[in-house]
Amino acid sequence: MHSIGIVGGSGYTGAELLRILHTHPGVEVTLITSRADAGKPVGDAFPALRGRTNLKFTEPDVDALAGCDIVFFATPHNVAMNMVPELLARDCRVIDLSADFRLRDPVEWSQWYGEPHACPELLGEAVYGLPEVNGARVRDARLIACAGCYPTAVQLGFLPLLENDLVDKQALIASAASGVSGAGRAASVDRLYGEISDSFKAYSVSGHRHLPEIEQGLAQAAGAPVALTFIPHLLPIIRGIHATLIARLNDSETALAELQAIYEQRYANCPFVTVLPAGEHPQTRIVRGTNHLEIALHQPQGRDTVVVLVAEDNLVKGASGQAVQLMNLALGLDETTGLQQLSLLP
Amino acid sequence: MHSIGIVGGSGYTGAELLRILHTHPGVEVTLITSRADAGKPVGDAFPALRGRTNLKFTEPDVDALAGCDIVFFATPHNVAMNMVPELLARDCRVIDLSADFRLRDPVEWSQWYGEPHACPELLGEAVYGLPEVNGARVRDARLIACAGCYPTAVQLGFLPLLENDLVDKQALIASAASGVSGAGRAASVDRLYGEISDSFKAYSVSGHRHLPEIEQGLAQAAGAPVALTFIPHLLPIIRGIHATLIARLNDSETALAELQAIYEQRYANCPFVTVLPAGEHPQTRIVRGTNHLEIALHQPQGRDTVVVLVAEDNLVKGASGQAVQLMNLALGLDETTGLQQLSLLP
Amino acid sequence: MHSIGIVGGSGYTGAELLRILHTHPGVEVTLITSRADAGKPVGDAFPALRGRTNLKFTEPDVDALAGCDIVFFATPHNVAMNMVPELLARDCRVIDLSADFRLRDPVEWSQWYGEPHACPELLGEAVYGLPEVNGARVRDARLIACAGCYPTAVQLGFLPLLENDLVDKQALIASAASGVSGAGRAASVDRLYGEISDSFKAYSVSGHRHLPEIEQGLAQAAGAPVALTFIPHLLPIIRGIHATLIARLNDSETALAELQAIYEQRYANCPFVTVLPAGEHPQTRIVRGTNHLEIALHQPQGRDTVVVLVAEDNLVKGASGQAVQLMNLALGLDETTGLQQLSLLP
Amino acid sequence: MHSIGIVGGSGYTGAELLRILHTHPGVEVTLITSRADAGKPVGDAFPALRGRTNLKFTEPDVDALAGCDIVFFATPHNVAMNMVPELLARDCRVIDLSADFRLRDPVEWSQWYGEPHACPELLGEAVYGLPEVNGARVRDARLIACAGCYPTAVQLGFLPLLENDLVDKQALIASAASGVSGAGRAASVDRLYGEISDSFKAYSVSGHRHLPEIEQGLAQAAGAPVALTFIPHLLPIIRGIHATLIARLNDSETALAELQAIYEQRYANCPFVTVLPAGEHPQTRIVRGTNHLEIALHQPQGRDTVVVLVAEDNLVKGASGQAVQLMNLALGLDETTGLQQLSLLP
Repeated sequence: MHSIGIVGGSGYTGAELLRILHTHPGVEVTLITSRADAGKPVGDAFPALRGRTNLKFTEPDVDALAGCDIVFFATPHNVAMNMVPELLARDCRVIDLSADFRLRDPVEWSQWYGEPHACPELLGEAVYGLPEVNGARVRDARLIACAGCYPTAVQLGFLPLLENDLVDKQALIASAASGVSGAGRAASVDRLYGEISDSFKAYSVSGHRHLPEIEQGLAQAAGAPVALTFIPHLLPIIRGIHATLIARLNDSETALAELQAIYEQRYANCPFVTVLPAGEHPQTRIVRGTNHLEIALHQPQGRDTVVVLVAEDNLVKGASGQAVQLMNLALGLDETTGLQQLSLLP
Repeated sequence: MHSIGIVGGSGYTGAELLRILHTHPGVEVTLITSRADAGKPVGDAFPALRGRTNLKFTEPDVDALAGCDIVFFATPHNVAMNMVPELLARDCRVIDLSADFRLRDPVEWSQWYGEPHACPELLGEAVYGLPEVNGARVRDARLIACAGCYPTAVQLGFLPLLENDLVDKQALIASAASGVSGAGRAASVDRLYGEISDSFKAYSVSGHRHLPEIEQGLAQAAGAPVALTFIPHLLPIIRGIHATLIARLNDSETALAELQAIYEQRYANCPFVTVLPAGEHPQTRIVRGTNHLEIALHQPQGRDTVVVLVAEDNLVKGASGQAVQLMNLALGLDETTGLQQLSLLP
Repeated sequence: MHSIGIVGGSGYTGAELLRILHTHPGVEVTLITSRADAGKPVGDAFPALRGRTNLKFTEPDVDALAGCDIVFFATPHNVAMNMVPELLARDCRVIDLSADFRLRDPVEWSQWYGEPHACPELLGEAVYGLPEVNGARVRDARLIACAGCYPTAVQLGFLPLLENDLVDKQALIASAASGVSGAGRAASVDRLYGEISDSFKAYSVSGHRHLPEIEQGLAQAAGAPVALTFIPHLLPIIRGIHATLIARLNDSETALAELQAIYEQRYANCPFVTVLPAGEHPQTRIVRGTNHLEIALHQPQGRDTVVVLVAEDNLVKGASGQAVQLMNLALGLDETTGLQQLSLLP
Repeated sequence: MHSIGIVGGSGYTGAELLRILHTHPGVEVTLITSRADAGKPVGDAFPALRGRTNLKFTEPDVDALAGCDIVFFATPHNVAMNMVPELLARDCRVIDLSADFRLRDPVEWSQWYGEPHACPELLGEAVYGLPEVNGARVRDARLIACAGCYPTAVQLGFLPLLENDLVDKQALIASAASGVSGAGRAASVDRLYGEISDSFKAYSVSGHRHLPEIEQGLAQAAGAPVALTFIPHLLPIIRGIHATLIARLNDSETALAELQAIYEQRYANCPFVTVLPAGEHPQTRIVRGTNHLEIALHQPQGRDTVVVLVAEDNLVKGASGQAVQLMNLALGLDETTGLQQLSLLP
């Protein structure tokens, strides 16, 4: 039984870690911190756990956390980077769900987050936590930067095209949409039910912090720089990300069946990636509450443009489920342990 | 007072015509047909009108309809084309909200609708009902083919770029999303609340019937053939279409401010098109229940790609409101008569 | 043209006043205050009004407000009672949408609101703003306390039973449910989309501030004390209140048809109250965005219990629409002026 | 490993049985029938199961079903009663989720369902499937009539009051609300997203088929006839039932703390019933997707009326989860096997 600590337990990704780890057979959450809720039983904040755990939230404390085998950070950016160096120094392994260690270039990090990075020397060591790309490197990593929600969907959707140099790398487009939980649990007028329900809009089209993370990953897959137009939208749903990816084929003779075969082969050994039959349309509800990501390919009118549709749960495969998948790999457990839940229908 | 007939009154666009025309000062609905509901008071089907109208649904009958000044068809395709020739012969004017007269090429029509067109000789005469393009021609038209819901949003979003030859006409992309009312009021498992709520998906990506209509309009604006990748999605909202349009600038030096000025000028005299300040994000709820369409421009990262965001109400500017706007033009009334309602907030 | 001031313009009821009064032919909003948004154009907060008004929010200022013919308070409790005395002294008439002047007993007010009332001497003068009860008294009132959202639905639903002494006054039950907009526009975790959507709960069952207001009104109708069990619930809808009222008939032989006739007669001259045919079920969507309230009666199994179903829009008939109805009466205008909008379907 | 058959697999309760049994360690679904989908892989109808089962739907066939240890009927009424006699004759045990065997009186059954009962001789043998009441009798039962969704919530909410003779049995009130999935998966205009979303209404107030089932159960608990006013409402949520129960205390001196203790004791050994601290408010989302039912007690204003709030998932504790709980009991397994899933937050 490995002992687990969670920093930042009162947000949605913290709750989701608790939910998933509650039935995980190989680990036990022994510590969960929350400045706001310190002293409160976990069951008060998450009624589904009432009576099922004796955990209480505590103040974040490095000494206590250092006693855990693995510490998850389920915090906004700018928290993990201030505690991670000391935790690593004390032989604790860290899986960070925030953006602090996702970018390799500290200058770029500073441009997007508006402040210097607190430990740029760790950016090189941190393993980018996308298991379908970096699974092998995760096993021995001390510090894992769990991939973001949009970045997971967009990268897994584009990878086979870029790894095989099939499309114009300078004209990639991702029109993606996220459920409201992606914005977290902080009080905000913009996310009130009355402001979100029965409406739809794009946001941050001129620049979203996930853009550099995605371009970094796509460039690595392509072995060359890429240019992505990334257009996020806000959905009136609780959970789910849907990414509609569009790229121009280098060779207009490339057939959809060929692309389909490449995708199926690329993800044949990835237990959480399903390539649907060509022409289908993934739905966010089918993966809701699960760590599964579904992909479908289209080539409208048989023209030179390929459309890749991707659906995932932003809080599971896009955050806490992926973090547990990474933990499984880091601990040498089967990758799917504790992550086999089916979604509800309806 | 002009007398109005409505064919197909029991669907959502028929109801919306009734709602708008109920407070319109220049016309009166004297006839409304519905095979399914013939004999029923209109107020039974649309409780908001209970006690406010004595109309009853009748069986569709050309003789009765011919007595109206204007007849609206709020029917699926394949109804209007079988009744329009006789109505025109009897000096009745027709505004068709269906797809029967939107395409100019009967061969293309047959390819997408799977049957021969019943009166191809009228396709040349029918005026395509997009007031911001064809307003002048509408005034004298006998037969007006009201533009479709997606086509209205996509065309009005792209027009200034194409009319001014600013973007690559062979790589246009429209990733659009519609509320469920766009699919009509017929019973269907796919549109049950339990199947739609809290989910999102694309549909008909490999080919949607609005594609040829949109490409026809864009090609006319461009004065040359265009290629559009059109990707529709289904939103868990009642009403609203949001179109995310993406195009590559011919001249990568073109600045956003320049584009903004072109859009503002293009729509300066269009009372129902609002060009938002550059960088804003239209929301479907802001135009819900209104005939207004909002557009905003973005140029992410100052690169060579322009993103145009468009929001409209699919049942108003995308159908019945636009039809009334066309009727106003056809009758020589002020274009905005009866169409000035504000949306609710929240 | 009467000049209108609105205090507290940045909440939902303030926005709703603006929307309704924007098309009202007899008045003009000349002043709207908001501490938070002072200096901002109204169109920035309410995009539906962008380009349709030049109003800007101002700091609340009694001198400026005193120049208006009528001032609406669309504020939380404890604001109006501190400004009203001075406004009345300067011959301004006031319609207060808050709870400050709804209770006649200052001691009871203090028990529920936890502080002394600032001007108890005005509680006797204030006319309780339920037009279907106090319409005549409103005409000459200086100070009108617009009835609350739940109280409007519950009182109008019970009145005919109590006025005619038909039911057990000591065992009245109101199980009611409100859309989220009833809780206002302030940021709150409890009202985030992710917390409200796809869920339902009761709240404040042990004691809700609308209880004394309702019991006061019911007691007046009954001419005797009443005891009401009031059970509010929170609906995952934007707007709408539905009240399910249950009472025991004094005479178990009373027939539903008899009750139906009494209700129809009671509301025959009330333009905004519709008594549906017995056995129907009002829906909140049918009255959404309108000032109409719908009532239906049931007598399950022909037993001795009558069930009254009531639907209204909490922001219109339950707040701002009712306030405008009261204003119409106070100004000697037709009661329905500016309040004839139809709801959308769907 | 016990073999399980499911009749009527293409509806929501059939899907839910599949989902729950898919991870159940003690049984295997070997047969699932659906006239509409015969021949189709189960994964086509329920994408969450795609790739996780090789089952195909078959035509219902008594010979094949008789080979199962237990057969579930997840069908509308009037199916099970025509097949059950033969299955019992062949030593198959049956758990019926429909209404066919819930009422003991065939005359009453016929009044509510409009036809004669096909095997009235079995009504006496059928064990009413509410584990918290009949758990012991279930163990040896051949035929179990799984309690309905509303009846489960209403009975478990009222039982302690009636078993202890604490309230007026002739004036019980249940104002309950269900998510749309309670109406099943059949296509219907009334349940389209556009008709349900953003609205709320009561339905079947004059008479709902669950009334006699509930009164039968309550009368048994009370040891005397009862009269219940049952008022169902339709919620714009996918899953969940919330029941608001109201009763008048026989002794107005009874304190809330006393009632609380009685409830806690009554359900101390019921693993799926949680009595919340007095004064709390259960939410449907907290039990969504789980077999748990939550109860909270209120005594508004300390008066003589007790309010019991109950939340459950209509498809789990209200249908398929309860059916599996009954199956566990019938097979001598731990009651909670396969039913320990936590709900999502958010």
